[in-house]
Amino acid sequence: MQHNLVIMARTEISTLGEFGLIRHLTDKMEKRQPSTIKGVGDDAAVMKYAAGERVLMTTDLLLEGVHFNLEYVPLKHLGYKAAVVNFSDIYAMNATPRQITVSLGLSKRFSVEDIEELYSGIRLACERYGVDLVGGDTSASMTGLTISITCLGTAREGDIVYRNGAKENNLICVTGNLGTAFMGLQLLERERQVMAANDKATPAFEGREYLLERQLKPEARRDIIEKLREAGIKPTAMMDVSDGLSSELMHICHQSGVGCAVYEDKLPIDFAAAALAEEMNLNIVTCALNGGEDYELLFTCDIKDYEKLIPLDDVYLIGHITKPEYGMNLIGRNGEEIALKAQGWQAFAD
Amino acid sequence: MQHNLVIMARTEISTLGEFGLIRHLTDKMEKRQPSTIKGVGDDAAVMKYAAGERVLMTTDLLLEGVHFNLEYVPLKHLGYKAAVVNFSDIYAMNATPRQITVSLGLSKRFSVEDIEELYSGIRLACERYGVDLVGGDTSASMTGLTISITCLGTAREGDIVYRNGAKENNLICVTGNLGTAFMGLQLLERERQVMAANDKATPAFEGREYLLERQLKPEARRDIIEKLREAGIKPTAMMDVSDGLSSELMHICHQSGVGCAVYEDKLPIDFAAAALAEEMNLNIVTCALNGGEDYELLFTCDIKDYEKLIPLDDVYLIGHITKPEYGMNLIGRNGEEIALKAQGWQAFAD
Repeated sequence: MQHNLVIMARTEISTLGEFGLIRHLTDKMEKRQPSTIKGVGDDAAVMKYAAGERVLMTTDLLLEGVHFNLEYVPLKHLGYKAAVVNFSDIYAMNATPRQITVSLGLSKRFSVEDIEELYSGIRLACERYGVDLVGGDTSASMTGLTISITCLGTAREGDIVYRNGAKENNLICVTGNLGTAFMGLQLLERERQVMAANDKATPAFEGREYLLERQLKPEARRDIIEKLREAGIKPTAMMDVSDGLSSELMHICHQSGVGCAVYEDKLPIDFAAAALAEEMNLNIVTCALNGGEDYELLFTCDIKDYEKLIPLDDVYLIGHITKPEYGMNLIGRNGEEIALKAQGWQAFAD
Repeated sequence: MQHNLVIMARTEISTLGEFGLIRHLTDKMEKRQPSTIKGVGDDAAVMKYAAGERVLMTTDLLLEGVHFNLEYVPLKHLGYKAAVVNFSDIYAMNATPRQITVSLGLSKRFSVEDIEELYSGIRLACERYGVDLVGGDTSASMTGLTISITCLGTAREGDIVYRNGAKENNLICVTGNLGTAFMGLQLLERERQVMAANDKATPAFEGREYLLERQLKPEARRDIIEKLREAGIKPTAMMDVSDGLSSELMHICHQSGVGCAVYEDKLPIDFAAAALAEEMNLNIVTCALNGGEDYELLFTCDIKDYEKLIPLDDVYLIGHITKPEYGMNLIGRNGEEIALKAQGWQAFAD
């Protein structure tokens, strides 16, 4: 019923990509509220409503068929993960998650028991991380399951770590291992296809439970945040690895106005993930750089923290920050430099 | 790939309804955070992170084909409304909206220009209400448009008005008029059908622009919140009318443990809405009670505020709070009592 005779230009979203689109849309945003400290552009927004304390907010929208496939993701795991990835964003600001709201869109395919399963996962995550579920709503949906979760957190004024604080000669560290969640997804997808072709087949998951767990039931690295605090290390920049190491490193470098060098042989890679990659003819380094969904922490810190850093379990030094003109590079095993590319998010491309 | 041989019970969501489902799911929620003041069950959650000031959070998920129809809702209006309905929830707690996050799920049908239109509406709402857009994300979607908005607000400790404070003999007031947004929707739907049947037809909207505006571009009643404050009236209970007056009155009565009597001849009804209802063979009182999406404020206040209330523009006294055993009743024009029914939300029913 729109009688618009003007011929409108049509620009495909794929020409901008997710980050380009968000930048494009939020470029002209003014700040009206004195309480807004940090808006778009980090893991969470930061507000100051009272002296000393800061309030952080992050939100995530998960759509069936895009962000998850219920053929191999149990609803309880999905609920758990949907909550945990929001906690991860708050920890990535060096803050503590406090409350979440959950909104669901549900088609008639879902029963009350299904939603109880989903909620039992959300509740378990809240219990483990000490977070309160304080609101949300439930709607009918035409198609499938939609989950929208928003998380509030708090931090003391001086504690918050943004993406834009990395300085030349800072150390670059990452926790846990990389590419494992991606290999877990490849495994699930392969076995789904095997079983679709042969209904007598059973999935070959033995010895690979860890890969599945990394994909289906990731944890947020609260432990690392606590260890860094105990060790007296405050990162200069930090984010969580949700879209892949390359993409996250590029965010930190762009926002901090620096370059970086990371070493291929320093990337922490899980043995079972490497073995499966070999079997599936995938390059595990590419998976580690671009796989995403690891929910590990990527951070930079001052070189003077080196001695404090070394004793920390599950923290790996993978490179250092350089002058911006040096660019963002992966240093290969033979010393060759390869420019990093962000391949994390291509969903709008054909 | 789930090999669950247990026969699971299946309960249809329609047997519980939206409010029943949310109650069912959030029944067992513990409170772990001392900062959680009020969780599920009001227009917004309330947090206390620092002395004096309270932080409020509300969230809304809008799905294409369920909550809006892009055949007659321009994207700019949709963006405006999506933001404003969240502001309305914060005002309904007697608080001030401060920040929002916006997450979008977009199918390939949408171009960058479409999303700019949507955002221009969101931005306009933010500008008018002095709110900052501080985050969000954009995802690909398989089907249509999904909009998830979360709003943070603040209030001083003693100012917040919940749903559970209505007392016997309190006055019941509502602002603006009721049923008009619903009649706007009926008009849009009728003209859509006319035009679908005859592509030379033009929609007959003349003289009815107000009905369309109430449906397509509602406003949150910030003005009323300010007037009540200036007049020195603090409501005892308050909510916004999103699901229909009956449904909202029942929420206040249930949560406050009281009954109510509202008078049919006191319900504020717009003339154009009544005329269209007549033409379409609809009962305008039923539309006013159950139509929803008016985003007016429904509140109760002490009878001693009567003198202060009367001079306020656009505030209508429609009844009073009774003992709980009296029930929740509409008093008809001839004095007959009719028990109120909530018909607002039937989307899960067949």
